[in-house]
Amino acid sequence: MDSAELQISIHHRFGQVKFLETALTHSSFANEQDGFDDNERLEFLGDAVLELCISEEGFRRFPSAAEGQLTRIRSQLVKERSLAAIARSLKLDRYIRLGRGEELQGGRERDALLADAFEAVMGAVFLDGGFEAAKGSILAIFEDLWPLETMLPEAKDYKSRLQEVAQERFRDRPIYVLAGTSGPEHEKIFKVDVTLPEGEVFRGTSTSVKRAEQESAKIALDYLCDE
Amino acid sequence: MDSAELQISIHHRFGQVKFLETALTHSSFANEQDGFDDNERLEFLGDAVLELCISEEGFRRFPSAAEGQLTRIRSQLVKERSLAAIARSLKLDRYIRLGRGEELQGGRERDALLADAFEAVMGAVFLDGGFEAAKGSILAIFEDLWPLETMLPEAKDYKSRLQEVAQERFRDRPIYVLAGTSGPEHEKIFKVDVTLPEGEVFRGTSTSVKRAEQESAKIALDYLCDE
Repeated sequence: MDSAELQISIHHRFGQVKFLETALTHSSFANEQDGFDDNERLEFLGDAVLELCISEEGFRRFPSAAEGQLTRIRSQLVKERSLAAIARSLKLDRYIRLGRGEELQGGRERDALLADAFEAVMGAVFLDGGFEAAKGSILAIFEDLWPLETMLPEAKDYKSRLQEVAQERFRDRPIYVLAGTSGPEHEKIFKVDVTLPEGEVFRGTSTSVKRAEQESAKIALDYLCDE
Repeated sequence: MDSAELQISIHHRFGQVKFLETALTHSSFANEQDGFDDNERLEFLGDAVLELCISEEGFRRFPSAAEGQLTRIRSQLVKERSLAAIARSLKLDRYIRLGRGEELQGGRERDALLADAFEAVMGAVFLDGGFEAAKGSILAIFEDLWPLETMLPEAKDYKSRLQEVAQERFRDRPIYVLAGTSGPEHEKIFKVDVTLPEGEVFRGTSTSVKRAEQESAKIALDYLCDE
């Protein structure tokens, strides 16, 4: 396999080209031929390498983004369709070793197969050159794919976000009720219950009604987004 | 906050203790007091740091484990309950800054809150000392928690694994049928369909019946494990 051009595209010159070759070996090929490892273990590793490098860069690029926003940005960047597009732009499809059955079924064009191979290649860079090498490669490849700070959704106001989510999902709005207070006058604790249109109730507890509302909205959002 | 003992337990001496303090600040505390960042962004980062360090170490410890086994081992190690237990053994609960409302509701004992704080602390180590520092800390903390190689389920034989999964889930076994062949005699391709007890059919294609059976079993396993 002559991978010189590919090594230039991914911004990493391999010390041990064997890692790259394994990253480009689909299981259907390894199953047909003796003596080849497939790329599935490297894909496992590369998935985590990518996740950390993109997380760290998002963390640095968007210092005022909340955790939920960072998670959404990362999901956009590392979803299968995005990775498959990157794989195509790197012409990975030309290098992948496929079994004949998989080839006949059009495997070389499949998003899942291409995304997996890209992850495996990043795993190979990590094994070959360590974390900093993988980070350099990944940041260069993703350089033009980051959203602009100005396109980020508003941070941190959970009540507004819950309002939007509820409108979108239920065509109705959440209702907040002060459920009680406790503690002495100078350090009173407020409990607010928010009820979603379908009847679920979530309680926020804090040192003001406003903060308790935000807390309850946050818990409700976590619930809705985990479903 | 005097965190000297904690820094010893996590095997990292902080250059910038501010990172550690933020990692130990729950959002309920930051919401009540001005001038404190909460630990949610660090938790986002730490989750990915942990994932990569555990993935890499699993990859190295179990050179013959298949990707699916590595995934299962990692899930066991980084699931909420495991991380909460680690947080308790590091006495993180004593250091976490909680809001009063959360405190009254027993937040300091909650698995989710403790696991998040542990992830945030690992994110802080990564920011403070870089990847190698975080890896050192994580490997030391997890040292005694890895399974033994001999306890790993058998690698790679997809037919046997599908058999087990089908017995367990459906109390019945999958059925393999040779669905056809194609190609010239000297490079014939075999298609095998495996039918699960509930009727789903998955096709494997390869250069021998045996390999095509393995392929079909693998696809069926992927399907069952993704549900």
